[in-house]
Amino acid sequence: MSKKYDIIVLGAGPAGLCSGIYCARYGLNTLVIGKEPGGMVSETSVVENYPGFESITGAELAKKMQNHARASGSDVLIYKNITELRKRDGSFEVCVDNDKFLAKTLIIALGTERRKLNISGEKELSGKGVSYCVTCDGPLYKDKTTAVIGGRNAAVTAALFLAKKCKKVYLIYRRNKLRSDKILTERVVNEKRIEIIYNSNPLLINGNNAVESIAIDQKGNKKDLKVDGVFIEIGAVPATELVTKFLKIKINGNGQIDVNPNMSTNVEGVFAAGDITNGSNNLWQISTAVGEGAIAANSAFKYIKGIKY
Amino acid sequence: MSKKYDIIVLGAGPAGLCSGIYCARYGLNTLVIGKEPGGMVSETSVVENYPGFESITGAELAKKMQNHARASGSDVLIYKNITELRKRDGSFEVCVDNDKFLAKTLIIALGTERRKLNISGEKELSGKGVSYCVTCDGPLYKDKTTAVIGGRNAAVTAALFLAKKCKKVYLIYRRNKLRSDKILTERVVNEKRIEIIYNSNPLLINGNNAVESIAIDQKGNKKDLKVDGVFIEIGAVPATELVTKFLKIKINGNGQIDVNPNMSTNVEGVFAAGDITNGSNNLWQISTAVGEGAIAANSAFKYIKGIKY
Repeated sequence: MSKKYDIIVLGAGPAGLCSGIYCARYGLNTLVIGKEPGGMVSETSVVENYPGFESITGAELAKKMQNHARASGSDVLIYKNITELRKRDGSFEVCVDNDKFLAKTLIIALGTERRKLNISGEKELSGKGVSYCVTCDGPLYKDKTTAVIGGRNAAVTAALFLAKKCKKVYLIYRRNKLRSDKILTERVVNEKRIEIIYNSNPLLINGNNAVESIAIDQKGNKKDLKVDGVFIEIGAVPATELVTKFLKIKINGNGQIDVNPNMSTNVEGVFAAGDITNGSNNLWQISTAVGEGAIAANSAFKYIKGIKY
Repeated sequence: MSKKYDIIVLGAGPAGLCSGIYCARYGLNTLVIGKEPGGMVSETSVVENYPGFESITGAELAKKMQNHARASGSDVLIYKNITELRKRDGSFEVCVDNDKFLAKTLIIALGTERRKLNISGEKELSGKGVSYCVTCDGPLYKDKTTAVIGGRNAAVTAALFLAKKCKKVYLIYRRNKLRSDKILTERVVNEKRIEIIYNSNPLLINGNNAVESIAIDQKGNKKDLKVDGVFIEIGAVPATELVTKFLKIKINGNGQIDVNPNMSTNVEGVFAAGDITNGSNNLWQISTAVGEGAIAANSAFKYIKGIKY
């Protein structure tokens, strides 16, 4: 037997959990399912730009949001795999590991997945020194040497986080100037343990059972940097594989779910919110994710109640 | 001499303070000016739907957000009156009480003003028992009888707040059913100190130097209810008087500032965010306000730096 809900929210990041809070407060029988409570926030070392929290670890904020959704009356389920999604007789079936759930509506808030470098050694040494999560794996590199690839906020934040523990951190960026917020750029430039290597592209990651070095190309000059760990922080792509495979959700040229101003999608009864959408002028922030989560919840509520929205 | 900034944010609610946090983090010289830190949030008894804070008083959340903007490097000024706004040679002059400030860009986040009943006695007894802020004035009515006018979330939340102190609370609504979120409706219906009076419109408020009673019309039957205080919670209208008077900002049929997806307005260098705009599908929430504040800040930053946005 499938357990029945009014609404299932796929994804437990700020957008999904905010949808959960709002839907439960509207009196809807609500299930939020996600791989990781807090989504990408849980992998962020420190959050300083979500109003109300001057400085909080990503893990702590993720936990607060998850507890908040539960306290509001929403079920929150951490799953391993969504194996199938089906639209049938106007309702939706979601198969998760060995469980099945039914709902009248869906909110898709699956966020993004880390972008890969696609160079030799990246896949082979993943989990053996190659990482996409400095918060998860950074603490393992006390007094070691690491490299961070990227030059935007995520990469700079990761380098600053590592510099607290590591002997040395290389920040390797393909451009001649960082693209992080000024407050972060100033910090990273002044941090003695960090060496910024501009105009450089990673070529391959060396090592057998553990990362030993990273080869880079700096304007035609090849270098091999001895490192114990490589953190790849070059952005993310919308996690739409599931919804394009099982539902006929419209995706735009950037791979995002095209949403209307009320966060509805092209499929009736399906709404979307957060970094997976083209909303909020493509500014992927916790602040914008919660806004979209609230709007999607409000629209899903009106849809269920048959209110014009 | 006018003090010069890169950006001035008008309004210190969640939208304005979030803009302040983001602008300061972008390295912009930023001033946020508002009448009340937190804006309408500061008048809210309890906030339970801003993700991360399960339950927090409006005053406390307002203070946290103000402190956060200051900690990020933004100046926050609490003013009495903005007396003039001028666009001159591509920059903006803001006259506040006896001070003058100059900026390259503006973000308008002035929010809304309380809607009035426009009945006899309302204006005359304002501050003498008639109030638009239950958090500010509610505590004065311990063991007294009060009336709340309205039937949406704000009115129901106000009635619940008053019921903790008052002997009796009338909740007077013109419709035959409350329009609050289910979680709130259930609480108010079960609260013995609250009597909900449906299908009723207030006619006049009686009293000389203090409220004595409120006259209502319930489907043609006139009643006079003895009360010590009347709290009017019937919504709000966008506070656009200032910007329509001094800048040629485009306003839509609902009295809101029409914004583009990047929160720019029809006037170059002027952006807007929060409840004063037609953004976020007209869902006026703290969650949506911070989202808009972040987007407006990002767009203003790009405008100042000459980045295509």
